[in-house]
Amino acid sequence: MQFISEQRLDDGIYERNFTLGEIPGILWTPASASAPTPLILLGHPGGLHKMYPRLVARARHSVAEGFAAATIELPGSGERPHSAAAEQARADLRRALQAGQPVDDDIVDRLILPLVEQAVPEWRATLDALLALPEIGGPVGYAGGVIAIGIRLAVVEPRISAALLFAGSFVPRSMFEEARQVTIPLQVLLQWDDEGNDRQLALDLFDALGSKEKALHANMGGHTGVPASEADEGSRFFARHLK
Amino acid sequence: MQFISEQRLDDGIYERNFTLGEIPGILWTPASASAPTPLILLGHPGGLHKMYPRLVARARHSVAEGFAAATIELPGSGERPHSAAAEQARADLRRALQAGQPVDDDIVDRLILPLVEQAVPEWRATLDALLALPEIGGPVGYAGGVIAIGIRLAVVEPRISAALLFAGSFVPRSMFEEARQVTIPLQVLLQWDDEGNDRQLALDLFDALGSKEKALHANMGGHTGVPASEADEGSRFFARHLK
Repeated sequence: MQFISEQRLDDGIYERNFTLGEIPGILWTPASASAPTPLILLGHPGGLHKMYPRLVARARHSVAEGFAAATIELPGSGERPHSAAAEQARADLRRALQAGQPVDDDIVDRLILPLVEQAVPEWRATLDALLALPEIGGPVGYAGGVIAIGIRLAVVEPRISAALLFAGSFVPRSMFEEARQVTIPLQVLLQWDDEGNDRQLALDLFDALGSKEKALHANMGGHTGVPASEADEGSRFFARHLK
Repeated sequence: MQFISEQRLDDGIYERNFTLGEIPGILWTPASASAPTPLILLGHPGGLHKMYPRLVARARHSVAEGFAAATIELPGSGERPHSAAAEQARADLRRALQAGQPVDDDIVDRLILPLVEQAVPEWRATLDALLALPEIGGPVGYAGGVIAIGIRLAVVEPRISAALLFAGSFVPRSMFEEARQVTIPLQVLLQWDDEGNDRQLALDLFDALGSKEKALHANMGGHTGVPASEADEGSRFFARHLK
């Protein structure tokens, strides 16, 4: 992990851009902390630059609650090499949505499964590097989309103790079996009136998740209209499980 | 409204038993408050004596957050005169549930509709009396079951500004049309693994509610296993909307 820039943001947060091999990422830590802080990994749909305003807002919230926060670029997104197969799947998805057709399982599989296969080891390598820093301790939470990545991480990565998942993206059918294997505490956000999302599939996925402690928070406001109060409730969820 | 007893509970709450005509009720207020406090009406499934431990726990929480809290006995419950028709409907319901049969709409209508017809004017009369007390101000919230009572109150009682509803009881089909008329902010609690509750009906009811600002919180833990964190989230919901 190489830090390539650092700045102190206005309210006492250090923001550092890093690369891990070819993967760009950002780490936010409290400007002053006397002990190693627990860590929240911020998931997102890809495109660090475009997502930056929302990511830094979530990071500020996390840091204010005493957590470090980190994110990495997804494979095939932003300035990383794009994959022809993923671009094709994305184009097929757009075409189906624009035509108002149901989205084939095949398209979802082609789009999401390779992403999960590649992104999860990258997140785990990032976690190795972050936990080697003296200012970062455990426990670790994962927050955000892509929900299929969050599910796979929750199953295979024992250092992740709790996850806040956004049920707003497509999920391959084969992930339902994996969902049953999740045992960590979960909070799942669903935008009830998100027309681009299959609500019933999201409810079925919530039902499938194996965790004894799981909560679904459904709100109005469309795909990107998660109410501000959910940021607080997310912080309290992590405070209950990571501190 | 006649106060019939009062006691100061251990942590600075005044608890007063009252009667309003024939209706028994309980009012909890902060032992010291410099200004009139907003009010939360605590709904419950009937049986003040049996429900007291849970009601006083909810009241303590409300008072700690700066609210007064009040509840009344439901018609036909506790020490109030029982109705033969309601007893018959309850017996029919028990028989259907014990036999593992689906519950007829007719049974639900006979059980719930007369309850709503009678309970809602009683709650409104109670509200008149409570708001006449110098220590109680507005705004007013309603929290709890029976959800059909909460929905009717939200539609007909303009002094109720927000409601926290428990989607764990039977709802007559005719209430769905009424649900569309609700416009106040809502938080709806659903116990996902409550085997005695029709989950799909609860989700359909949440969908029908007309409020632009509505949130569904679904949790595990069975009918009575609402997690402790929901009490805090309920307080914050009312703090956002009643203060």
